[in-house]
Amino acid sequence: MKKVRVIVRLRQGVLDPQGKTAEHALHSLGFEEVRDVRIGKYIELELDETLEADKLHEHVKEMCDKLLANPVIEDYEIVEG
Amino acid sequence: MKKVRVIVRLRQGVLDPQGKTAEHALHSLGFEEVRDVRIGKYIELELDETLEADKLHEHVKEMCDKLLANPVIEDYEIVEG
Repeated sequence: MKKVRVIVRLRQGVLDPQGKTAEHALHSLGFEEVRDVRIGKYIELELDETLEADKLHEHVKEMCDKLLANPVIEDYEIVEG
Repeated sequence: MKKVRVIVRLRQGVLDPQGKTAEHALHSLGFEEVRDVRIGKYIELELDETLEADKLHEHVKEMCDKLLANPVIEDYEIVEG
């Protein structure tokens, strides 16, 4: 079994209402040092190792492009192992 | 400005409906090698450096315990820099 992690973030400049809400909540809890909060997705995939490593990486890229990340407003980063 | 990242995951054994949905969708897209999908939060915090490093770390821990992570079903990991 191979474990691959994918970090999906909103692109710079895209409004992050969830992050803004968390930022205001942290201020109300007294954490004045917080300047910005951005909230993305942290995806852990467990994959059968039936494919070659580079083929598997290509598949994960396709999974991100087709489903796991919204190409219009999100970027993603694949972190192996 | 200091950047701190926090990874928030559902605890092992806690059902992940969002992950299950993504897993089934990936199978229907033909990615049969997917065995499991777990989806957590990837939080990027920008903080003023008004506090000492260890005090800042303590504050981030408090932010997680009080707001960013649900201690009943989630674990978190603080990634500095």
